[in-house]
Amino acid sequence: MVDVPGAHRVLGPPGVLPQAAWRLDPDPALKDTAETRVRVERLNLDAASFRQLRDAHGDRVRDEVLRIVAERGKMHNPVTGSGGMLIGVVEESGPDATVGVRPGDRIATLVSLTLTPLTITDGLARWDGRAEQVPCDGFAILHGRTVAAVLPGDLDAALALAVFDVCGAPALTARVVAGYHRPVVAVIGGSGKSGSLSLAAARRAGASRTVGVCPDGTEAARLRESGLADEIVVADARAPIGGVRADVTVVCVDVPGCEHAAILATRDGGTVVFFSMATSFTAAALGAEGLAADVTLLIGNGYVPGHARMALDLIRATPGLRQLFTRRLRAD
Amino acid sequence: MVDVPGAHRVLGPPGVLPQAAWRLDPDPALKDTAETRVRVERLNLDAASFRQLRDAHGDRVRDEVLRIVAERGKMHNPVTGSGGMLIGVVEESGPDATVGVRPGDRIATLVSLTLTPLTITDGLARWDGRAEQVPCDGFAILHGRTVAAVLPGDLDAALALAVFDVCGAPALTARVVAGYHRPVVAVIGGSGKSGSLSLAAARRAGASRTVGVCPDGTEAARLRESGLADEIVVADARAPIGGVRADVTVVCVDVPGCEHAAILATRDGGTVVFFSMATSFTAAALGAEGLAADVTLLIGNGYVPGHARMALDLIRATPGLRQLFTRRLRAD
Repeated sequence: MVDVPGAHRVLGPPGVLPQAAWRLDPDPALKDTAETRVRVERLNLDAASFRQLRDAHGDRVRDEVLRIVAERGKMHNPVTGSGGMLIGVVEESGPDATVGVRPGDRIATLVSLTLTPLTITDGLARWDGRAEQVPCDGFAILHGRTVAAVLPGDLDAALALAVFDVCGAPALTARVVAGYHRPVVAVIGGSGKSGSLSLAAARRAGASRTVGVCPDGTEAARLRESGLADEIVVADARAPIGGVRADVTVVCVDVPGCEHAAILATRDGGTVVFFSMATSFTAAALGAEGLAADVTLLIGNGYVPGHARMALDLIRATPGLRQLFTRRLRAD
Repeated sequence: MVDVPGAHRVLGPPGVLPQAAWRLDPDPALKDTAETRVRVERLNLDAASFRQLRDAHGDRVRDEVLRIVAERGKMHNPVTGSGGMLIGVVEESGPDATVGVRPGDRIATLVSLTLTPLTITDGLARWDGRAEQVPCDGFAILHGRTVAAVLPGDLDAALALAVFDVCGAPALTARVVAGYHRPVVAVIGGSGKSGSLSLAAARRAGASRTVGVCPDGTEAARLRESGLADEIVVADARAPIGGVRADVTVVCVDVPGCEHAAILATRDGGTVVFFSMATSFTAAALGAEGLAADVTLLIGNGYVPGHARMALDLIRATPGLRQLFTRRLRAD
């Protein structure tokens, strides 16, 4: 049998991994020597999940989040399949824990809430249901292979959390961009959080030109001010985007139906990286086939070694990025 | 505005590409100078789609296929999002058609039915609803960028069609395998059609060892007899697979929930290629993140230049593969 981190917390269906499980055991007591318990301060819901919950439940979104967590033992939106992340303070760590954090550390988890056993103890009383960042008292369990990062002393916690939430995107973008010689890089949703970080990462990794695609003039103005993109295109990415032909196209908008436009915007031999949780696997696969597009289609793996540190470095070193990020956070 | 092949056939929603459209115009008359009309002989439903239709509609599956095609102007299963392909004879080709086939050619389309305008004229009267291959009279329209292949004279049409249906898998597998030095390659669903072709392609592309994962002893025996795998593992791929650590893992089973097992079976620095249309984008992305797995996750693009010819070459040159394929086809 393979050693599967966190598998002993799966209550059903039997044999599946924590993320695929319908229900986890959220008991705050440590259940093996590799676990770590965190006292939760705040949840950061995945953008696609929060949007779906708001659309479907309106002002009753708080009840729905509480219902999901009570039923599933984790914040795993059954409609979008996505979760989010959390910040909190480490309370207790088993002797075999490899997460690399210690009791007293204020940390953020860098793995999805969809596999994190969670108990909420305050009924989310301090959350007004209007933003993805959810003040929360409760307990979470990290298993042996969880990735977590200590919150940096020089950055606001909300900023760091928002950066960590999308830190896989700039790291993977940088890796893909470095595989090409001076590529043109287009980022769909370039003014958003993962999009702006990806633009900054692409430039640092050797892009010859960066193109930011924005849905409207407001977003375009924000991106222009940041200086992160050499070119800005205003377009609805659910329809073909005129004029963009990139070597690497990065999809960072959390709306469905952008697969084909991204493929059409990419040159033969190029790569599309899908970070949006609204991506349809079949639409991407069949779309490329139907367009006879010889492009590499990457599922945006949220884990790349060193991703959190790299994203914080980008924020610290790029004033335009930090300003855009901070403003967006304030607006949320 | 970008030139989008086939966009003039989209009846709704406005502005989307043919594959994303809810409804296409299936009129058999050519609508522009780049179109080609095919007299359809047979549809080959995508395996995931056929399974879903059988499960949901049982013996009324024929009515459901007719209903879908009448409503959408294409065979696009609204539940699975997938389609299939067809064979037929070219009737008429516009002067600007670039498909590379001529009137009278007996061809197979290598793009999905989800973007192919289709009219069925015989009510599928010759189909008993028990197999993915559907005898059919009707008309299909190929747009300028469609990929199609003339059926080879030396192979049975049903065999060629089944090979074409999955020919993207061996081509992309070969490309990924060639990017590693003598990698270990595991194929989940190794005894199936795309799986067995992928195993043969992996060996030819330089795999040091090929591992076939099969769901039961019957499939394992079939694969063993073919000689395509150096090692055979019997396992349910919806749960972690013991003992497999591959550089390249290829997922070819059309059941949901195999994402995490595939990721766990892959070494850090390795690649998982998902060909199954049952793949969940979020399960793959969040699963890798949750396992802190530094693996590249590829959406199996069904188009790689030269894919059809390569797959036919493999079938011709590998007796064990051809035998396994033919038997499976007969059993279907």
